[in-house]
Amino acid sequence: MPQHPAFNVLTATCPSRTSLARIANKWTAMIVSALGGGRLRFSALRSTVDGISGKVLTDTLRDLERDGLVSRHVYAEVPPRVEYELTPLGRTLRTPLRALNRWAEEHIEQVLAAREAYDTRS
Amino acid sequence: MPQHPAFNVLTATCPSRTSLARIANKWTAMIVSALGGGRLRFSALRSTVDGISGKVLTDTLRDLERDGLVSRHVYAEVPPRVEYELTPLGRTLRTPLRALNRWAEEHIEQVLAAREAYDTRS
Repeated sequence: MPQHPAFNVLTATCPSRTSLARIANKWTAMIVSALGGGRLRFSALRSTVDGISGKVLTDTLRDLERDGLVSRHVYAEVPPRVEYELTPLGRTLRTPLRALNRWAEEHIEQVLAAREAYDTRS
Repeated sequence: MPQHPAFNVLTATCPSRTSLARIANKWTAMIVSALGGGRLRFSALRSTVDGISGKVLTDTLRDLERDGLVSRHVYAEVPPRVEYELTPLGRTLRTPLRALNRWAEEHIEQVLAAREAYDTRS
């Protein structure tokens, strides 16, 4: 595994923190999961990431494209068809982000119990 | 690995999405990393997570405590000493969140190059 001791997310001015902010994000985790099966049109992506607003999806896709994680394919049709796909770099996030999605799904019962206990004693 | 097909973060109303929102967060990733070595006082935690504001650290620690990921230990001293520690549940997040921190540190050069290319053509 490559080591980059020069970069440390715990240092406020390290540029790697800006990348962490982009990937450690619930919408990124869900979008990368949704695109894990292949490229999708905006409307299909929006349906898959149930409940995401058009604005949040547009903004997040633009940020992911800017960071080199998602590519945008525009087809000269009427109306124009636009599809989104993980880049090779974006695909390297599938495993770590799937781990977070799974963690949330597998531990939500413990988390809900903890919340109930916390709220009861607060 | 336990399977919970009843929970799916891609469903807007699934409670697991609220847990994903908490764990897929840059501050959570950094705080869990900082507490990975053992319990810390607030001031030491704030120094380790360079640049975090007191308010964001307070709010995030409270949310992590509510979700059962961090425990708070208050010592009856003058002035009171308060320490924070990962719970056993919180410790299960160390590996997946460390993977995100490392991803950001190891790929930031590619991300920065992608941003430069994007901004040049925009």
